[in-house]
Parts: sequence; structure tokens; C-alpha cells
Amino acid sequence: MNTLRTVIVETSRSPHAALRPVPIEAVQLEDNFWAPRMKTLREVTLPSQYELLEETGRINNFRRAAGKISGDFQGLYFNDSDVYKWLEACAYALAQRPDPQIEELAERVIAEIADAQEEDGYLNTYFTFERAKERWSNLRDMHELYCAGHLFQAAVAYHRATGRSQLLEVAVRFADLIVSLFGPGKKDGVPGHPEIEMALVELYRETGEERYLRLAQFFIDRRGHRTIGGHEYHQDHRPFRELREVVGHAVRALYLNAGATDLYLETGDETLMAPLEQMWANMVQRRMYITGGVGARYAGEAFGADYELPNATAYAETCAAIANIFWNWRMLQAKPESRFAELIELAAYNGALSGISLDGKQYFYVNPLAARERHRRQRWFTCACCPPNIARLLGQLPGMVYSTDAEGFWVHLYASSQATLSVGGSSFAVRQETDYPWDGRVVLRVDPESPTTAAIRLRVPEWCPAATLLLNDEPVGGRASSGQYLTLNRLWQPGDRLELRLEMPVRYFVAHPLVEADGGKVAIRRGPLVYCLEGHDQVEDPWCTEIHPVRSPNVRLERDLLNGVAVITLPGSATELESWNAELYRDAFEDDSFRRPVVVRAIPYYAWANREPSPMTVWIRRTPAE
Amino acid sequence: MNTLRTVIVETSRSPHAALRPVPIEAVQLEDNFWAPRMKTLREVTLPSQYELLEETGRINNFRRAAGKISGDFQGLYFNDSDVYKWLEACAYALAQRPDPQIEELAERVIAEIADAQEEDGYLNTYFTFERAKERWSNLRDMHELYCAGHLFQAAVAYHRATGRSQLLEVAVRFADLIVSLFGPGKKDGVPGHPEIEMALVELYRETGEERYLRLAQFFIDRRGHRTIGGHEYHQDHRPFRELREVVGHAVRALYLNAGATDLYLETGDETLMAPLEQMWANMVQRRMYITGGVGARYAGEAFGADYELPNATAYAETCAAIANIFWNWRMLQAKPESRFAELIELAAYNGALSGISLDGKQYFYVNPLAARERHRRQRWFTCACCPPNIARLLGQLPGMVYSTDAEGFWVHLYASSQATLSVGGSSFAVRQETDYPWDGRVVLRVDPESPTTAAIRLRVPEWCPAATLLLNDEPVGGRASSGQYLTLNRLWQPGDRLELRLEMPVRYFVAHPLVEADGGKVAIRRGPLVYCLEGHDQVEDPWCTEIHPVRSPNVRLERDLLNGVAVITLPGSATELESWNAELYRDAFEDDSFRRPVVVRAIPYYAWANREPSPMTVWIRRTPAE
Repeated sequence: MNTLRTVIVETSRSPHAALRPVPIEAVQLEDNFWAPRMKTLREVTLPSQYELLEETGRINNFRRAAGKISGDFQGLYFNDSDVYKWLEACAYALAQRPDPQIEELAERVIAEIADAQEEDGYLNTYFTFERAKERWSNLRDMHELYCAGHLFQAAVAYHRATGRSQLLEVAVRFADLIVSLFGPGKKDGVPGHPEIEMALVELYRETGEERYLRLAQFFIDRRGHRTIGGHEYHQDHRPFRELREVVGHAVRALYLNAGATDLYLETGDETLMAPLEQMWANMVQRRMYITGGVGARYAGEAFGADYELPNATAYAETCAAIANIFWNWRMLQAKPESRFAELIELAAYNGALSGISLDGKQYFYVNPLAARERHRRQRWFTCACCPPNIARLLGQLPGMVYSTDAEGFWVHLYASSQATLSVGGSSFAVRQETDYPWDGRVVLRVDPESPTTAAIRLRVPEWCPAATLLLNDEPVGGRASSGQYLTLNRLWQPGDRLELRLEMPVRYFVAHPLVEADGGKVAIRRGPLVYCLEGHDQVEDPWCTEIHPVRSPNVRLERDLLNGVAVITLPGSATELESWNAELYRDAFEDDSFRRPVVVRAIPYYAWANREPSPMTVWIRRTPAE
Repeated sequence: MNTLRTVIVETSRSPHAALRPVPIEAVQLEDNFWAPRMKTLREVTLPSQYELLEETGRINNFRRAAGKISGDFQGLYFNDSDVYKWLEACAYALAQRPDPQIEELAERVIAEIADAQEEDGYLNTYFTFERAKERWSNLRDMHELYCAGHLFQAAVAYHRATGRSQLLEVAVRFADLIVSLFGPGKKDGVPGHPEIEMALVELYRETGEERYLRLAQFFIDRRGHRTIGGHEYHQDHRPFRELREVVGHAVRALYLNAGATDLYLETGDETLMAPLEQMWANMVQRRMYITGGVGARYAGEAFGADYELPNATAYAETCAAIANIFWNWRMLQAKPESRFAELIELAAYNGALSGISLDGKQYFYVNPLAARERHRRQRWFTCACCPPNIARLLGQLPGMVYSTDAEGFWVHLYASSQATLSVGGSSFAVRQETDYPWDGRVVLRVDPESPTTAAIRLRVPEWCPAATLLLNDEPVGGRASSGQYLTLNRLWQPGDRLELRLEMPVRYFVAHPLVEADGGKVAIRRGPLVYCLEGHDQVEDPWCTEIHPVRSPNVRLERDLLNGVAVITLPGSATELESWNAELYRDAFEDDSFRRPVVVRAIPYYAWANREPSPMTVWIRRTPAE
């Protein structure tokens, strides 16, 4: 086995991107929030997922396709994709730091995949042997192109992380087969589940082969021409350029948008950006949970109508919050505006992160904003898209902390870390020190190789009412309000020290009046974190608890609670759930008479359901006027 | 055409019924609430529904089946049932008072129905000609037995109302065919949509033929033995005697329960009553809207899980609220307990009555408890079950005012009316005078033919905190608290005057904390009426309006508003919907700063959506503590 490459590679710059991504290996997290999660990813999540891929026959499906073992195909027809997503996550873990155990597992799985590929490049373990004749016969439902996309993404990530090309060669051979079959004058059609669009653009970036970009373009262009039935569920009801609202299956919709944004980054086709912007506005202004979760409906795992955002019956699939991050990451490259980074931060700390347990081996598929005891994370699912997806998200987060551009670099996320950034040919060592997300003070030590003029841009989050910046302990008058980047363009000396002080008060939010489920309720936020009430921490059931939103409630970092969380304590009132007998409705004054003052303790939403089963709610009633 | 019979017939008494129903024709409504609705029923609803039955081909389907016209069957395969339900409603209207127009329409339709019946008694216009061979081949989905049931109910009602037997003879011939086909040792199976169970028991009561009762028993007994697939949707997942919760399609569930209660009334089979009581408790304690509406879910028009009672996305089909009344009416006959009459009153004044417009010709299929402007009544539906169902409910309400028993009579509902009640062989003329539901004072003038000892029982509604009773202007100390019948057992003299004073304060209700949609909100009730805020009457959008639930808000009867309603005026606060720009969530303190004091005006829920489109909500946020 070769030694892993450790050089930091320049990522290719897309011609229509405003920003250039920073390679994952260029950023080493050292914080108390994400770095321990990366450790858990390497030590618990990825090994335990490998066991489950084996246990559930997902890897055996490749062995079977290679003729090494007999028996039936196991599980769902798209199970190959889980293996690819897991491999992609391994690639990111290896990009961060060598890990012989993960490397060995990944190499073993790659060998099984390579062995399963057919002579002509075809690779899908479901459509082998008796089902080989059904290949490409049902693009709408059978996820063949979707699985191919995940293979390509894994292959590119693994190649970038390790320099090894075996999986990339497998991907290229399969991609070339697909290119030979689909496109203008060839087979018409689009995938029922978007994914390959992003993947083909990435494969183009990695190989420089334009045929992959052209095929991505074909799949986007042909969408909505009813080649797969014309359903909103598949975003096939209307051509992409006519889309105005996010509809249908949420993960599909956002993977499609991410792919279209990738295509925009390469082509600069503004007819793609217009619908992307409109869908973004529709999602953010009308169809997104305060956690960054999306896809309100169980039925069809779909976006709801405008303002349809129920809490207890929220679907908010983990994969959809992740897709939200993927799409916004690409939008941010196209347009360096804080609003996209906001959503990345929001979903990463809340709606996506809730998808994985603190111990790194239990998962939510569905992320409600209010729940009773029975909603618990599971170690795996028959349809196991979410577990490896959260793994590959966590793995690539270090790459989302910074971007560079011709003038300097941008700080999107805050976390103690060391990074090496390439700015205009010279290298900047950047060290962040912060207790984020618990504290809003961020120290940035900037070490250019030599004095270098550059613009450093620091995001002032929307949640932050006031930010101050010090350069080498002197206040500097950067001009940025909440939700913008604060820019400092100067000649940087080795050892320069920036200190950003983001005020991080407890804030209470109300939802738009047309969000019926949230009427009369508030949600608590502090910094990037959305809070919730979990039963464990309350005197009474959280569903029976009201709060009085005081301006400065007590905030205390409790290191021993839930791996360390800042707990918010505030006054409220509550009734006993047990005071309700058989009645479904009762007199409000009688109910008031049961209300007693209580102390309410809120914890971050992502951390709920990590203790014994207990009810939870994000949206909390306000104590009514007497 | 014969003269209609005007004698009041004794209804047969079911052996296991505690109460005996009073024939519809024995009660003449003279009040300002229901009597005008009966007039509208006769003058607008029934004639306009006839036009629609013609216009939509429903009656032509009978002409086609009779070979009088050619062409295809029109509409849905269960459209015959709409014609039968309309006829049943006509029967009740004619029982109340002669009406040559309705009589002529009804007779015309009965002739068409009779002509369409086949030699062997079969009658379903969908399964004729090319589809005759499909008869009885799909009991689960094709509503053949359901349509038959509606024919039988219409036939019995028409026979009772008019004494004419043509339709009853048609029904008997068809029922005898069904009896010859189904039952032990014959064809096994149950109807996918219950209805025929009630109808067969009624046909047994009218004809005395036990074979109909036995067939009803067979259909109840065979249910849940998976003869139609074993789905909860059809209540076929479990034998009837093992049912504990109301599940699946709400109308089906409650028609089944009504049929099983009818069977109980005839057989006294306590193994039926036990599950009925448990389902009743499950429904009332966990699965019913405060309006008496049921069936929370659009998907499957179904009961939701416990406490799953969303407001804006409530389904609450008009037919389900009606079915709720039908079932409770039968339960009341079995057990004369106020709780059943409560639900009849609740659904009649609220969740069912909302299904029809004030002008009597527009209908809600779905009755949400919160809505935006687009939710409007329609003049008809492709699946038009609700319009003729609300007609047949309104038609039979006079028969639900009283019951008799061996000791005297019971007053379940309050409305100015004249009635002739048969008590122990002697006749009581009873005259009610009241402004109910606007006022809780009820005067009952009792005129026995001669001095007669009898027990008169007056319901003290659950909503009433205090009731007093006067006999000939002297207080009498009846012992009854809210939700019970107040009994006066004495020798009644002609001219005796009872005065019941029911306190009717405005009350506010909260929902059980597990009803997520209602958290932090109150609903307003006064007397039997549930109130709502409609946009027309508010300063700001009702969804942006909070109330301060004061103990004695202003109540004023506005005669010119919505055909006369008591409007409740109370203080509240509101924000402007327009103060929301593109944001989905905003700071609660900022939101508070937009809040202004307003005067809030609430109207009865049944009356909403009778003006220009406007938003509405039943559950209203409370003004929060500052």
C-alpha cells in the first residue's frame, strides 16, 4: 500500500465561481466542537458503518456481482449508493489525517467495487445476472444514475485525498459508458433521483474531460420534459429554467439545485441562476424550518406548501438538511454572500447535526421539531441514505471554513483550527482560536510567508446584533452589519492578530403568522444554535411548559452535560400533564389555575434524544398575560 | 297522486333501547335557528340538489339502466347513493310538512329508480350492461352494498313519511336478493364502506323481517376477518369486538359503529357495546375536534393518531361529523346519557353545520379549523357525498329533539317548537319557547290530554356552569349538574309551565397539551356554539391576532349579520401581516413591538365563509405576558 499523499493540492477554480474552495486537508480542526466529532467519525462512525455495510449485505452485493459469492441481491436496489457515500466520507477523513484502519477498510471496499465492474464499464450490483436486461429501462424509479453519481463523487474525493486512482478509473469507465448511451442523439431521459449532475461536474473538474460536463448539462436541460412522467415529486413537472418554487421530494430537489449550481459555476449560464435564486428565496422565506431542515411532509418526503411547517409531524430528513448545505455551499462559491454561509452554519449545527447521536453511531432519518418519547435515533435503516450522508458531510466541513479568491480569503465558519491558505501565490498560515459556538470571541492569527497585501473577510452572522473587530489589539472600523462579511484589506505581517467579538445574546424568534404550527410560540437561539426543551431538564413535560422570554437569561456551559453544552435557564410556567384526565379540551381558566412557576432549561437542539427517551419541543409557548 | 298521510305514527321500539325515538312529523320546529334552515332545505337545498343530480347524470344513470336512454354511465361508480340520500332528505322534509314540489320531484325520481331495477331485484346503475358480470366481484372498493344501504334507508324514510310503498318494495326486492347471496353458507364478505348495516336493521324494523337483521349481524361479525384485505382503512384489520380505537376512514368507521349500535339495540349483544364504548372514549378523549368534527387526515380521509388534530390541514369531512351524530343518536337510544346528546348538539351546531352555506346551496367537504381565503364552499363535488348527507341530517334533526320512554320524555335539544309526544298511552302536547342557541332560557309548556304522571328529563349541557328550573314560576330543586339530565317526575296538569335557565357565559377552552397545533391557543365557546375569528370582523388578519380572554366579554345578537348571530367582542392585540417582509422567522421582541391593541370580534364557526373570502381561525393565540 502506498503512503498517502500529504501535499496540499490546489483545487481547480471554476471559471464562473467568485470563490475558490480550500482543500479539506488544508484545514486542521482543533476545536472542542467539531474536532471531537471528526475523531468520533474516524473511530466510531466509519468503522461501525463498515460493519453495517457488511452485515446488511451491501458489500456482499458487490462480491456477488463479481461472481465471488452466490445468493440473491440483498436489500434495496439503490444500496450500492450507501457504500459509495461511506467511501466518500472515508476519503474526507483520510484527507484530514492518515488513519490506517480507515484506509485499509476503504481499500478493501474499493477492490470489491472494482471487481464487480463489468467489461463494458457498467457497475450496479442490482442490475446484474437475471436483471441485467432491465438496465436503463426505468430511469425514474430505479436509481441507476443516482448510484453512478455517488460512485463518481466517492472516486473524485478518494483520488483527491489519497492520490490513488483505482476508484477514479472505475468511475471514469462507468461514466464513459453512460456518456456513450445518453445525450443528444442518443438515449433520452433524466434520473428520477438527481445526484449524477453534481457528480459529473466534479468528475469533469477532476479529469478535465468536457464530455462529463456536457452530460450533466444534458440531464439538467432534459429535466421537466416529462421523460420520466412529469411529476413534481421528481422535479420533472417543468423545465429547470421555469422552476420558481422548491417542490417535491426535498433531497431530490436540492441535489438537483446543487448540480445546476455546479453547472453554473462551470458555464456561467445565467438562465440557471435565475431559477436557483427564486427557489432559494422560496425555500428560505416559506419552506424551511428554523433548524435549516427542509421537507415538511412525510408523504413523498416532500417540501410542503408555503408556510406548511408542522413540528411534531415534520419530516425534515437528515439528508435534506445535508442537501441544503451542499446546495448553499455551491451558491456561496458563485456569489460570496453571507446568506448562503448562514444556511450552511444553520443546518450544520442544527437540522443536519441532529441526525447523528453524540456517540456517533445512531441516526435520525426524520428530524421533528417537537416529539414524544418514542422518537429515537436508530443504528441503521433499511433505506440507509442518512447515516453515510451525515458522515460525508462531517468529513467535508473543514473544507467549508474558508474560501480564497484573487484578493485574499474569506472566513465562513468559526472553529479553532490551523489552516494553510494559498492567496495570490503566497501562503497564509491562519490559526483560529475560539470557543464557538459557545462564545462569540474569535482570534485569528495570520501568518503570511512574507508581508502580503490581501483582503480578509470575516462573516458577521445574521444572529449577531453587534460585532467589533480588533487588529493587534486596536479597534478597527470595519463596516459590516449582521449578515455581511467584514473586510480588512491591508498589508499583512507575519504574526498579525485579529480579534472578532461577536455578541452572542440569547434570542427568541417567532415564525411568520401563516406558519400555523408555531402560532403563539417562540424558539430560542443563541449564536448558531437553535435550542429546545427536553423533558429531562424540565420540572414538567416540555409540551406543558411556557416560557417568559427574558432579555438576559442565564447561560452556563455545562461541560459534563451532553459532551458539553451551554444551557440556557429562564423563567416560565407549567401545568402537570397528569392534571389532564380523560378530557381533550378544558376550560382555560381551570387550566390557568394549574399553572405553576417553573425554571426552564433549554439545550441545543442537536443534542436532544441522547439520554433516556423524553419529550422535546423547539417551539415553546409564551406565558400568557394574566 | 295520493294525499300524503298526516297521522303521526308510533315508531317501533327496539327491545334493547332505553329510549324510543319520536317521529319526525311529531315535532314542528318554530325557532329562529333551525326552522329557517328547514325552510331553506325545502325551498333551496333539495330543489337545487335535484337539478345537480340531473345535471351530473346521476338520474340519467337510472334512465340508462332502465334502457330509456343510451350513452355511458356518468360519474363515479357510487353515484347512485347521492340520489338515495337526497330522497331520504326529501322524505324527512315531507314528514315535517307537505310540499308538492318536493313530493313531485321525489316521486319522479322513485319512478326512475323502480324502472331501473332488474328482474331479480338487482339495482346498481354502474353494474349494468357491460359491467353486469362484475357484480359482487369487488366488495372492498366498489360500494355496491353501500349504495344498497342508502337505497334501503331512503325507502324506509319515505315509507314512514308518506305511507307509500313503491320505493320500499324496490328496496325489499333488492334486499332479498342480497340476503339470498350473502350470509353463512353463502357468499362471504363485507362491504368496503359500511352503511348497509344500519340500513338492514332499519329495514328489519320497518318490515319485521328478521332476515335483514341477520344479514346485518353477518356483515358485522365477518368484518375484520380479512375478507376485504384486512386494512385499517376499511376497519377490516381486526374483528369488530376487538376494536378499541377509531381508525381508518372516518365516515366508514362511524357508519360501522352506528350499524353495530343499531344491531345492539335489537339484540342486546353486550360484546358489541364494549368495543363501542371504548371507541367512543378514544374518539372523544383523543381524536375529535372541538367542533365535533372527526377525521384529521387528508390521507385516507382518516382518523389520525391520538391527539393528531391539526387545524389548517384538518380534514374533518362534513360526512364524518354527520356520521358522528348518527352514531351518537343510536348510542343515546341505548344509554340515555347526556354525553351522547352533547355530541349530537356539538356536531349539529358546529362541525356538521359548517358543511352548508347560509343560502343552502354551497358545501364544504373539508372543514378546517383554520383557513386562508382560498378555502371556500362549492356548489357540488365530483364525489358529492356531503351535500345530500347534510340535507338528510337537517331533515331528521326534529326527530332528535325528544325521546320518550316508559316513564315520560327526554328533552335532548332546545329549540322553539311544538311537539306531540306519546307517553304511556297518553298524549302530551309540548311547546318549547327559547332563543337558543343565543340565549339559555327555555320555556316548556306541557299539555297532557289529561293529568298524567310522567318523568320529564331536561338536559343540562356540559357547557352550562349553572342551571335553574322553575315550575309554574316556582323554583324547583331538580338535581342535575352540567352534563346530566334534570328529572321532574310528577303529575302533570294541562298548562304546566317549566322554565329552564341555562347560564350561557362565554367560555375559553384549551386543548390537551399533546394536541400540538393548539398549544398556547384558546378556543371560544358560548352555549353549544364554537366561535371563530374571521378576517372580515378583525382589524388585522385573524392569524396575527391574539386575544385576552376576559371573563365577561360583550355579547350582542346582530340580527343583520350572517342571518343573525351573537357576536362576541373582546380585547386583544395584533400585528400587521404586512409587517412581515420576506422573513420566515423574526425576533420576538421586534414582533412584540409591532403588536397593537385591537378589538376582536368572534362569530360562530358554522357561519364563516359566507361573505367574501377571508382567513379564519378557531384556535386563537393568547396575548403573551409582557
